[in-house]
Amino acid sequence: MPGDKLKIERVFHALGDATRRAILEKLGHGPVTVSRLAEPLGLTLAAVVQHLQILEESGLVQTEKVGRVRTCRIEPKGLSVAEQWIRERRTTWERKLDRLGDLLAEPDDR
Amino acid sequence: MPGDKLKIERVFHALGDATRRAILEKLGHGPVTVSRLAEPLGLTLAAVVQHLQILEESGLVQTEKVGRVRTCRIEPKGLSVAEQWIRERRTTWERKLDRLGDLLAEPDDR
Repeated sequence: MPGDKLKIERVFHALGDATRRAILEKLGHGPVTVSRLAEPLGLTLAAVVQHLQILEESGLVQTEKVGRVRTCRIEPKGLSVAEQWIRERRTTWERKLDRLGDLLAEPDDR
Repeated sequence: MPGDKLKIERVFHALGDATRRAILEKLGHGPVTVSRLAEPLGLTLAAVVQHLQILEESGLVQTEKVGRVRTCRIEPKGLSVAEQWIRERRTTWERKLDRLGDLLAEPDDR
């Protein structure tokens, strides 16, 4: 499905950056406002907003604006897409390699 | 551990590209030579070599040169790094959200 392909593209791209992973780890402790997120990570507000946009588009983070304050929270379900993609492939490939190993281990005269 | 951080960075970066995921899917059917990999994906040899380098550095693919022919094979264990990273975080965050939900569901007079 093209939608899923786009989704997985965005999730892996989002996770491929150390700063975005640091934002996720931080949000893993609980919801935080955007300004509180910037300071301990040594980032400008503009940089945080840019990273948050990528994280939000990938479905890994949700943000909500109340008045002038935007709060961010983690969306663990967003990770499931990537987890499933990886698990499916790893198990298929491992099974294939096992079969190849069995085949090579068979006696030559069979 | 910095080594693990670098590793996870490389794996997610490698997986964040549609062409590299297509190469992995292709190699999932069995080992293939570099030139056989380029053609069906509509890529130049130079492009494939560049993608393979990124995949090899991330530990997702192994290549071996015999004479003038380089053969590529999948390395399923390379995916385990990313799978573990994701699973650990997803379960922690889900547990935390569950506890938050329980807390909010408690009667106010407790």
